[in-house]
Amino acid sequence: MFESTAKLEQQLTFLKELDKLKAVYRRTRVKPDNNRQENSAEHSWHIAIQAMTMVEYAEEPVDVFRVIKMLLIHDIVEIDAGDTFAFADTSELSGQGAKEVLAAERLFGLLPDDQAEEMKVLWLEFEEVETPDARFAKAMDCLLPVIQNMESDGGTWATYQVTRSQVLRRNQHLERLAPALWAYVLEQIDISVRNGWLQDC
Amino acid sequence: MFESTAKLEQQLTFLKELDKLKAVYRRTRVKPDNNRQENSAEHSWHIAIQAMTMVEYAEEPVDVFRVIKMLLIHDIVEIDAGDTFAFADTSELSGQGAKEVLAAERLFGLLPDDQAEEMKVLWLEFEEVETPDARFAKAMDCLLPVIQNMESDGGTWATYQVTRSQVLRRNQHLERLAPALWAYVLEQIDISVRNGWLQDC
Repeated sequence: MFESTAKLEQQLTFLKELDKLKAVYRRTRVKPDNNRQENSAEHSWHIAIQAMTMVEYAEEPVDVFRVIKMLLIHDIVEIDAGDTFAFADTSELSGQGAKEVLAAERLFGLLPDDQAEEMKVLWLEFEEVETPDARFAKAMDCLLPVIQNMESDGGTWATYQVTRSQVLRRNQHLERLAPALWAYVLEQIDISVRNGWLQDC
Repeated sequence: MFESTAKLEQQLTFLKELDKLKAVYRRTRVKPDNNRQENSAEHSWHIAIQAMTMVEYAEEPVDVFRVIKMLLIHDIVEIDAGDTFAFADTSELSGQGAKEVLAAERLFGLLPDDQAEEMKVLWLEFEEVETPDARFAKAMDCLLPVIQNMESDGGTWATYQVTRSQVLRRNQHLERLAPALWAYVLEQIDISVRNGWLQDC
């Protein structure tokens, strides 16, 4: 009989745990699937391909492989900490940071030490948004909902009375990092304010 | 007003189209989400992280960045061609290859020419399973359902009366490529036959 190594067992435990991210639902809707809520696993897949497709717009050097790894793992902490809405009230966000740090410790900690460490470091880099790779990754995470909301008559912006200034702030990393995509976002915001999908403030 | 370039428009069209893969459902069930069917977008996310986690078991040199790109895009053709069950009857598979080639032409063809070409080449390499990268990618695509079925009392194997020899054949790339993972699969097959989850033939 095969004696599976302790290392492989740890990796299998981590991979089985990931199934739970398919049960973490975001506010964004999947229009082609009867407008159901999107989950964080399929969202992570979508933004990873978006990064592959749009890396040419980055004006700083970006390592797209690192960006894709960040995007694939960035939401795993939500298995324990839950998803928070991009435009949530400050009160709803209270304690979220601490919950996510504990979640990263537990979830990446299921892996063998070297892999756990690598994923924790990547996740923290994404959260701190201080390197070009992390800025580009964060920009991808924020840009996709813009594209999706424009396909759904304002989507979550309209449903939750989001404002122009909130969307500008959320996509701010694009301004210097990817001016062509920033210009696209500005145009979508203008259209959305005109259509009443975004509050004009 | 921002004049979006033709190139960016093509990329946005492709990214919007990808939302449809979240509505393509596989036979595999997501146990932590009330046992609903898994879709091909979240499956692609899961196997990409599996490849990151398990690349150390590959005994041939494998470029894990190429493998991850392959895995992220390998199911996109299902938007047009639909998902086929891994253990489908030959009759159900008739014409599937031709449908997928047309789907690859249309879907990747939404992108600017250079990106369309790159994705078509990667997709075809995955389908032909003749390079180490493609073999490892295919092995990841086949291995995850083994892990998932073992968590669900045999899962799709039990539901659709799958046989030991079918699962062996489906995971055959592991035998030379990643012997430690092949040993794991053999062990799971033995357990499953004993438990009546797999037919013993």
